[in-house]
Amino acid sequence: MASNRFPIMEIFGPTIQGEGMVIGQKTMFVRTAGCDYSCSWCDSAFTWDGTGKQDIRMLMASEIFQELSRIGGESFSHVTLSGGNPALLPQLNELIDLLHENGIAVALETQGSLWRDWFLQIDELTLSPKPPSSGMQTDWDILDELVSRLSDHNRCFCLKVVVFDDADIRFAEEVHRRYPEVSMFLQAGNNDIMETDSTVLLKRLMKCYEWLVQSVMASTVLRSVRVLPQLHTWLWGNKRGV
Amino acid sequence: MASNRFPIMEIFGPTIQGEGMVIGQKTMFVRTAGCDYSCSWCDSAFTWDGTGKQDIRMLMASEIFQELSRIGGESFSHVTLSGGNPALLPQLNELIDLLHENGIAVALETQGSLWRDWFLQIDELTLSPKPPSSGMQTDWDILDELVSRLSDHNRCFCLKVVVFDDADIRFAEEVHRRYPEVSMFLQAGNNDIMETDSTVLLKRLMKCYEWLVQSVMASTVLRSVRVLPQLHTWLWGNKRGV
Repeated sequence: MASNRFPIMEIFGPTIQGEGMVIGQKTMFVRTAGCDYSCSWCDSAFTWDGTGKQDIRMLMASEIFQELSRIGGESFSHVTLSGGNPALLPQLNELIDLLHENGIAVALETQGSLWRDWFLQIDELTLSPKPPSSGMQTDWDILDELVSRLSDHNRCFCLKVVVFDDADIRFAEEVHRRYPEVSMFLQAGNNDIMETDSTVLLKRLMKCYEWLVQSVMASTVLRSVRVLPQLHTWLWGNKRGV
Repeated sequence: MASNRFPIMEIFGPTIQGEGMVIGQKTMFVRTAGCDYSCSWCDSAFTWDGTGKQDIRMLMASEIFQELSRIGGESFSHVTLSGGNPALLPQLNELIDLLHENGIAVALETQGSLWRDWFLQIDELTLSPKPPSSGMQTDWDILDELVSRLSDHNRCFCLKVVVFDDADIRFAEEVHRRYPEVSMFLQAGNNDIMETDSTVLLKRLMKCYEWLVQSVMASTVLRSVRVLPQLHTWLWGNKRGV
């Protein structure tokens, strides 16, 4: 019976997915609380560092769907599960099933630190191993397992690496060499998640993106990859809930 | 024998694809001359209005590939065929075959005004019927035929509509209603292709994109679509060859 409760931090939309494999997609967002990582530059640290604790609600799948319907009305048919790391929730399939029953496609992003059988039900799955600048370590055995299971099942998934510096580019090259058949996205990092002046921020973000584009263009390892910014931060700065 | 010559306007890269279904993709561009349309806002009018006539070279597939290799070196494995309308060239499969033989994926954009059997060889095909603001008329019978042939062959393709105003959004809704199963992209139009001040242009383009995002978010017809800008114009303005 679908009666588990999930720690939910935010439900919002419809808006666009600002990054990654379905960039531009009209979608609703469900953000779960809790993460097994603590990336130095995390732009959603409030989901795991305690500062957003008071916003966490323990909701059942049916309650999440009700809220999505209430705020999204008839205008959406796509939901993005984000975090934190939603893969921490073993029964999240209850929500995914309910969304699918209602004709809604489901995207999810996770760092790839653990496997869930319900990954096979996700319509667009992003595995985002974290580069050196994050301070995190990738467990390659686990990532190998995830990639091979998803590939074996012909799932629609990609790898995404957020890049801040040259060491991160080397890491992205390592990922791409290891999984050459998997669609690969490089994303320019947001190196100032505290900046409130959106014009100042935009200039900085565009510079970072141009640097990343130039670096990738010069690489003979990163031959067929996609390089993207975070469109939502270009548009709306570091604001939450958009 | 592959000895046909094609009217080529530009060969450049590697750079990113700034728009559409493979936005962000590292790619080389081959731009063909000639178009059966004359959209009022065309950002590549030099391919068909006579102003770029002196730049047209009649090249064989092997010569095009040589030039791609010379300027792109070992850094690419993706080529985008753009125009003008490359679909005007019945023997373009000679180039596509040669690229594939060399392990290079091929993307193409065309308005969908005529069919070519070689469409079935394109790795990422974009059909971009033109909205009212263009001044062009869509032949729906032909577009129906293209969509059904590509669908029957399970090809990777999408529909893209460039949007400037409300009438264009209605047109996009019509397209989406007619082909609900096909991936659908809406792209904010560049309403000033003469602006040379890139800061002024960026502000204007971002405003247009935000307007489009808001319009689509409110639509109950455009439920699962993707809304994108032209990233290259945000970065580099109206400059050619980037």
